[in-house]
Amino acid sequence: MDTTTLPSWNDGPARRAVLEFLATVTEAGPGHVPPVDRVATFDNDGTLWCEQPLPPQFDFVLRRWAEMAEADPSKRREQPYQAAVERDADWLRHYYDHIPELLRGLAHAFDGATPEQFEAIVARFFTDVHHPRFGLPYDQVVYQPMRELLELLAANGFRVFIASGGGRDFMRVISEATYGVLRERVIGTAPDYEYRDGTLHRLPTLLGGVDDGPGKPVHIFHQVGRRPLLAGGNSDGDVEMMESARFALLVHHDDADREYAYDVKAERALDVAARDGWTVVSMRDDWSTVFPQRVPVRTAAEVG
Amino acid sequence: MDTTTLPSWNDGPARRAVLEFLATVTEAGPGHVPPVDRVATFDNDGTLWCEQPLPPQFDFVLRRWAEMAEADPSKRREQPYQAAVERDADWLRHYYDHIPELLRGLAHAFDGATPEQFEAIVARFFTDVHHPRFGLPYDQVVYQPMRELLELLAANGFRVFIASGGGRDFMRVISEATYGVLRERVIGTAPDYEYRDGTLHRLPTLLGGVDDGPGKPVHIFHQVGRRPLLAGGNSDGDVEMMESARFALLVHHDDADREYAYDVKAERALDVAARDGWTVVSMRDDWSTVFPQRVPVRTAAEVG
Repeated sequence: MDTTTLPSWNDGPARRAVLEFLATVTEAGPGHVPPVDRVATFDNDGTLWCEQPLPPQFDFVLRRWAEMAEADPSKRREQPYQAAVERDADWLRHYYDHIPELLRGLAHAFDGATPEQFEAIVARFFTDVHHPRFGLPYDQVVYQPMRELLELLAANGFRVFIASGGGRDFMRVISEATYGVLRERVIGTAPDYEYRDGTLHRLPTLLGGVDDGPGKPVHIFHQVGRRPLLAGGNSDGDVEMMESARFALLVHHDDADREYAYDVKAERALDVAARDGWTVVSMRDDWSTVFPQRVPVRTAAEVG
Repeated sequence: MDTTTLPSWNDGPARRAVLEFLATVTEAGPGHVPPVDRVATFDNDGTLWCEQPLPPQFDFVLRRWAEMAEADPSKRREQPYQAAVERDADWLRHYYDHIPELLRGLAHAFDGATPEQFEAIVARFFTDVHHPRFGLPYDQVVYQPMRELLELLAANGFRVFIASGGGRDFMRVISEATYGVLRERVIGTAPDYEYRDGTLHRLPTLLGGVDDGPGKPVHIFHQVGRRPLLAGGNSDGDVEMMESARFALLVHHDDADREYAYDVKAERALDVAARDGWTVVSMRDDWSTVFPQRVPVRTAAEVG
């Protein structure tokens, strides 16, 4: 086995399928794809970085809501501010039942901010806040094997995009340093903006809806103008993006020791993967390393 | 004078200002800009290709409306279909007075089409239709000096984007072959899409409004995540994009012999250029060549 390529991947069906696909599209032959069409798209939360116990951006916005409730106590009995102030674990765990409140809260969390103002707040979050279990800034709790895959794709002439249900402008702050992905290659849920007084300001509405589920191929087309040739995801919200690609790679969270084990909101993705022959990546079996460096590990039980 | 750089530009203040700016941002010194921030944005109609007597996309959509009126005669007494069928020169010349009808007509011109269907129609247009004065497909009636500038910017580590008031997906069909600009670097007015039955379909609404005037810096931020370092335009709709850039270049149409001479809809841009010291490019004085090859030239009077 060539151990300089994808060094954090164990030899196994997932690694082999990726390398075989790359050889097919880059070498001469019937499966060859010209460089201009080599586009790869990846979900972020749970695909490139850890999304447990909360996606980093969810922690980010909870802190913002708590601050807002501190400044305006009338908000403390209103959701999502109340849940943010109380860190209401039950409410947060069932966040899928509270989408309207969450979207309303998101819309107003940074209303009117300029890109520079928002960026400064995000940068501070990544400096100040650490992952509750791994004790590192969130942008270090990324999957080393996936970073190697992004790099390998780039070396094979791919343009790598991130297509996340999370906030586009949140991720753009760290995408270049963390993943080597240019800001303009980050696709995600995004607010509308208006231009006044010579600068941009966030509006409380979304541009083109949430970048999840059927919204992912739509957002990708807007940004890229092409279908992905390869797409990677980990959950049901990635199914439509993955089915629009020629090669689909599904990260399966089955490693409670080194990361987390859960299939919630990935049931349909796992079904489609089995039916359509997608490449399923077992974090436990396919990855020799999960994170870029040794980190102090506490068990999930210790941090709740 | 180094004649291998920008060979179709005459030695003069415009060419010198461009070269001086490129030296400042690429060489070590106080004005140096790291490659990641080297973003250039250009308007298309009248900046990169000829927009007279009609912007190519306007001709494109007029033909579509005429076809639609042929298929459904009830449309023939409705605008913009009537003007399209009759090629009503007066109505078309004052198209700025008919924006609501035009937008409504645009919305429904390709409603429901998949990207592949739309692309095939656009490709046929560029094969079949010739510019009325220059007798060439529209994608050959491009400004050779501007193509050389895009190339020079790329050679200096810039990522070049097109930011046009025209249709994004129309331009993406020809941007790679015509300008060497990847589809994902074409920004413009675009429809919403929906994903159903495994593919995308155009909707009759716009994503984020028209990419013109104050809409340009907004669309650019959505796509790029950065301000342009250099921006090029030719009309009032480009002013906000250009004022958001460090270096602004305004193409002035003052060459009736080789192209066209007009200041309509560029009055404000010319004022701001004079006030803020933008680099104004005189097509007549600054360009030794206008189009990429000798073309049979008829005067504007001959084609109306």
